[in-house]
Amino acid sequence: MRPSGRATDEMRTITIEPHFTKHAEGSVLIGFGDTRVLVTASVEERVPPFLRGKGEGWVTAEYGMLPRATHTRGSREAAKGKQSGRTQEIQRLIGRSLRAVTDLKLLGERQITLDCDVIQADGGTRTASISGAWVALRIAVNKLMEQGLIAQDPIRHQVAAISCGIYQGTPVLDLDYDEDSAADADANFVLLSNGQIAEAQATAEGACYDEEGLLRLLRLARIGCASIFEAQAVAVK
Amino acid sequence: MRPSGRATDEMRTITIEPHFTKHAEGSVLIGFGDTRVLVTASVEERVPPFLRGKGEGWVTAEYGMLPRATHTRGSREAAKGKQSGRTQEIQRLIGRSLRAVTDLKLLGERQITLDCDVIQADGGTRTASISGAWVALRIAVNKLMEQGLIAQDPIRHQVAAISCGIYQGTPVLDLDYDEDSAADADANFVLLSNGQIAEAQATAEGACYDEEGLLRLLRLARIGCASIFEAQAVAVK
Amino acid sequence: MRPSGRATDEMRTITIEPHFTKHAEGSVLIGFGDTRVLVTASVEERVPPFLRGKGEGWVTAEYGMLPRATHTRGSREAAKGKQSGRTQEIQRLIGRSLRAVTDLKLLGERQITLDCDVIQADGGTRTASISGAWVALRIAVNKLMEQGLIAQDPIRHQVAAISCGIYQGTPVLDLDYDEDSAADADANFVLLSNGQIAEAQATAEGACYDEEGLLRLLRLARIGCASIFEAQAVAVK
Amino acid sequence: MRPSGRATDEMRTITIEPHFTKHAEGSVLIGFGDTRVLVTASVEERVPPFLRGKGEGWVTAEYGMLPRATHTRGSREAAKGKQSGRTQEIQRLIGRSLRAVTDLKLLGERQITLDCDVIQADGGTRTASISGAWVALRIAVNKLMEQGLIAQDPIRHQVAAISCGIYQGTPVLDLDYDEDSAADADANFVLLSNGQIAEAQATAEGACYDEEGLLRLLRLARIGCASIFEAQAVAVK
Amino acid sequence: MRPSGRATDEMRTITIEPHFTKHAEGSVLIGFGDTRVLVTASVEERVPPFLRGKGEGWVTAEYGMLPRATHTRGSREAAKGKQSGRTQEIQRLIGRSLRAVTDLKLLGERQITLDCDVIQADGGTRTASISGAWVALRIAVNKLMEQGLIAQDPIRHQVAAISCGIYQGTPVLDLDYDEDSAADADANFVLLSNGQIAEAQATAEGACYDEEGLLRLLRLARIGCASIFEAQAVAVK
Amino acid sequence: MRPSGRATDEMRTITIEPHFTKHAEGSVLIGFGDTRVLVTASVEERVPPFLRGKGEGWVTAEYGMLPRATHTRGSREAAKGKQSGRTQEIQRLIGRSLRAVTDLKLLGERQITLDCDVIQADGGTRTASISGAWVALRIAVNKLMEQGLIAQDPIRHQVAAISCGIYQGTPVLDLDYDEDSAADADANFVLLSNGQIAEAQATAEGACYDEEGLLRLLRLARIGCASIFEAQAVAVK
Repeated sequence: MRPSGRATDEMRTITIEPHFTKHAEGSVLIGFGDTRVLVTASVEERVPPFLRGKGEGWVTAEYGMLPRATHTRGSREAAKGKQSGRTQEIQRLIGRSLRAVTDLKLLGERQITLDCDVIQADGGTRTASISGAWVALRIAVNKLMEQGLIAQDPIRHQVAAISCGIYQGTPVLDLDYDEDSAADADANFVLLSNGQIAEAQATAEGACYDEEGLLRLLRLARIGCASIFEAQAVAVK
Repeated sequence: MRPSGRATDEMRTITIEPHFTKHAEGSVLIGFGDTRVLVTASVEERVPPFLRGKGEGWVTAEYGMLPRATHTRGSREAAKGKQSGRTQEIQRLIGRSLRAVTDLKLLGERQITLDCDVIQADGGTRTASISGAWVALRIAVNKLMEQGLIAQDPIRHQVAAISCGIYQGTPVLDLDYDEDSAADADANFVLLSNGQIAEAQATAEGACYDEEGLLRLLRLARIGCASIFEAQAVAVK
Repeated sequence: MRPSGRATDEMRTITIEPHFTKHAEGSVLIGFGDTRVLVTASVEERVPPFLRGKGEGWVTAEYGMLPRATHTRGSREAAKGKQSGRTQEIQRLIGRSLRAVTDLKLLGERQITLDCDVIQADGGTRTASISGAWVALRIAVNKLMEQGLIAQDPIRHQVAAISCGIYQGTPVLDLDYDEDSAADADANFVLLSNGQIAEAQATAEGACYDEEGLLRLLRLARIGCASIFEAQAVAVK
Repeated sequence: MRPSGRATDEMRTITIEPHFTKHAEGSVLIGFGDTRVLVTASVEERVPPFLRGKGEGWVTAEYGMLPRATHTRGSREAAKGKQSGRTQEIQRLIGRSLRAVTDLKLLGERQITLDCDVIQADGGTRTASISGAWVALRIAVNKLMEQGLIAQDPIRHQVAAISCGIYQGTPVLDLDYDEDSAADADANFVLLSNGQIAEAQATAEGACYDEEGLLRLLRLARIGCASIFEAQAVAVK
Repeated sequence: MRPSGRATDEMRTITIEPHFTKHAEGSVLIGFGDTRVLVTASVEERVPPFLRGKGEGWVTAEYGMLPRATHTRGSREAAKGKQSGRTQEIQRLIGRSLRAVTDLKLLGERQITLDCDVIQADGGTRTASISGAWVALRIAVNKLMEQGLIAQDPIRHQVAAISCGIYQGTPVLDLDYDEDSAADADANFVLLSNGQIAEAQATAEGACYDEEGLLRLLRLARIGCASIFEAQAVAVK
Repeated sequence: MRPSGRATDEMRTITIEPHFTKHAEGSVLIGFGDTRVLVTASVEERVPPFLRGKGEGWVTAEYGMLPRATHTRGSREAAKGKQSGRTQEIQRLIGRSLRAVTDLKLLGERQITLDCDVIQADGGTRTASISGAWVALRIAVNKLMEQGLIAQDPIRHQVAAISCGIYQGTPVLDLDYDEDSAADADANFVLLSNGQIAEAQATAEGACYDEEGLLRLLRLARIGCASIFEAQAVAVK
């Protein structure tokens, strides 16, 4: 039995509140149960040095967690003077995931930065960030297209992400904090709306797993992402 | 005429949403018009080294702004590896203001940290932070009293803060971004519910001011803080 | 009674030794009693990025304290790898104060940096820094005018600063360390020679204050600054 | 055809030179083709703060690349003052992989740090690091057992890692730099000698992949790790 | 001919003003011509971790240069967030030089920190620092002996330092900035009042030198240090 | 008697393995006994800002020590976020030493960086670095000459370095770790193949020394460098 009483393949409630803030070209507050992440998409008419003059754009991400998003207060990364390895790993993953569905040539020589800030954490902050970032990106790109700055839609597919894991020997979908901190294995899948995989990461925490386990986790992820794709589609309609 | 059409002594709408997040001992989302700040109060059963063993507590604050809280994206302080001078100045001010109404001996040997994170900025983020921090602190202290951890209420008064300034030659209350960026002088007052002053800061930006100007700004601040005290009282009832 | 035996409105001895070092375009060793600050003004024919090509200059300040300027040795900020919040707050204040009396267009596209380094501290280091910085700036600007690099004097007024505070219930002028560390409230005023106010900051330390208290502190500050304006005038004659 | 002319399931030559340096409790120079990594295992009789007094040990890793291990010189992380996100991601992976085969209780309250320094890079540095780290750990633990400091062997299995990827549409084993920089997808698998999986990471670079692709990469990884397990066994005999 | 018109073995004027600041246990403003360094000696009743409980003391040094001590303004190390390699090299040299004449056992378990801050630079700042540091240390140790905290004098000898160099083919004593920036070779010698050498450093800048050159530089250094020893003795009498 | 049983003027075995890595324009693994340093020379077609457009090149060095090159593990400088004073002092010395034999005009507007990374330490790492760096530089410059990028050889002489010291009262050549950590004085000499001196540094550790001692150390250094010059010549033939 899961602590939350959910079925093994049951997602938490997905909430997507688009246009949560007013300055960003795209913004969304996404919730997977009690996990809530504010994502903003900022468009800037410049690209990183390695892309200058190549007629291509860039999509990148930054990730942060408010100090008291968690059960006990964590120290503020700005005050410590550096981002943790975990933070950097997550923001690299978010950026890669969004680039996997974006045609950077069609985007043109501009950069879109997705800032994912965790307001409240209860497991799955990185997957909520990716799933929300697609919505913020979609809104920002729509705005660029409406303004005639982009001729052809650079976003090829939807992208969503979900965690799953092996909890007390059973594969379960969408781990909350209680499950995440006790899981034997912990996986994150980034999937495209056309069924392809952008990223699969499955990590043994307490016990290693086998090929069958990996496949069962992937199948759970497909179930979860189907729900997220629907919620995304509603949010940007 | 003010850009927003407000009267010179007219505040923006004050919104206070207590219990905005679930992990913190106290939390609130406070809004002064479009400015929105999330404040959490975190209680920790330890004090900074200089207070250890003295039977006294500590109240401190940290302040941050999400990268796209503003019109154009600012760089993330955690990524730059240091907090700006402005950030440090503001968080020192918030901490002092809350300590001005707290009896640290009655608090006992524990620390309460007020994290003020600006979700959306439109002028007055530091004064909204102070005003919201009092609510978060009040909620957290109430919880400590209910748990019997504190015998006697350490919070002596309400504290609130508001900005005012001289805009196109006229003293006005509660500057929004458009006014703030064009004001001749810019002041922040931290007032107590008993009428006393905890902090007064009045800075010439474009033109210096005289004693009469300083007093008129202070009187506007009293009007503004009266509204905030009411809103705080409703929020914690 | 004040620890020093001074009257409530009595300044410490002001000493101003111009041309204290030989390389800087302007330099001064200023003393308020035992507090001694070396200020140099350095002229550079470049401006910060945000001003490039606008035909305007910039005046900025940096502040530091030698490790053993104080009663007990403090750690060196260069060794710790960052400037404290207090240091940054003070250097921002010094820069604003000097810009308040400078016409940046008349200065032309160049930057003057005022380095204020505290050789010995006994209260009032930030106000001595501002008061000395005006002298160093005046000397440096005179040199630019003599060289024909500036046609019209960009310095509109004198500027001086002084601390005052409420010590054992009584407003007193020019706090020394013994008073500063025990004061109920602590204020710094930056005044112009035409009577206007550039900056007022009054902070409750032990007890909050009222409007009457604020006004009495301001009147003391006017007395103190009058003496400083005289000493500045003598020094640059 | 692969640039190197290798078959799709053909590893590069594996070389393992144990006892490469003399001070470390365990050390090895491991080569996967032209990729060469020096791994040392350092035993320290202390554990990180979160484990103190729990009677458990810790295994951790650090990773670095000499500035000219690569085709063009990269800047030295010590000179830049921080480790890149990539470095931190890799060293976290190495640490997790080795902990997956270690019984930390049997290790006792001591820490073993695996330093993986890339002398020459030609693709697969993280997988060579993990594979070599097991050898260095094995040697160091053997020494502890010979000294009677550990009663029962805390290492439960061998662990090895290998990269594979989809290169020009074909799944291939053990990517070298030429393949790695042009692959459509890039995966790293960490496998145990009992057939279980400790970590699977498959990332789309140019094109996303499907479930079948993921499984084919995993099967290639099994072939590669079989060779590495043999080479490890020979090296520590 | 030297730019200053001095003879090849002629020192600049040595000025030593003891007790320059009031808080430090020892302090001095030392001048070698236009080079002026403020040195303070701070006594702290604690030692670095590696010496705790060994009954021995420690003497260490820190060095800094005010931003406008030089011809053109240098950036402030505290603002840059790190000390340069040059700064660290110099402060290590100063510390070693003073320890060379101090019996750390007789000093007892306390630390004396010598802060050397260059007020004005015209060549020879490190040698002036060492020479001045001895005076500050002597004054501080005298105070400890007068207070009965040290029974037996831990300072065995005087120590002084001087630069010399090969300028336009000729060995000369006590380089000023004009000579230093054009010298073929540049040496610093740290000598004891008993004739021994604590440190010799001779560096080719434009042209290498031979054994005879090294010896001639050493002989010049002996002449210079003799003058410094005299000035030190007068200053502490 | 020396711990190693060597005669007072006896070097440890010198080993020089050129072309140790494949990417760098020049590379070498140099050994002085158990001390082993990997040196690579990287050619880049750009110069530091202060040399741009002057038609001159630059030779510089960086130095690092692998964490477990030493008896006990030292912390990784990249992880600590800064290079120690010792590291910076050594890399400045290596750079100066190589520039002493290089005609920077003949090198042309390009930079050669010598990365010296200590694989195993047993005393003398900085002198092995300098001696090996010459070999790596020679190989890299030969390559540039073969490619016709440099017309005339910019390397004027060989340069080598060796440590010596006063151990138990006796001057000895090429200190190993056991001697180095117990020596009364410790010297490093950088010599040219034409007999000149590029750098002499002799530091008292436990006891100061006299002129005769300095000369005896220099004579030992000449013996050691003669052997190194021979080994270098063989290596680059």
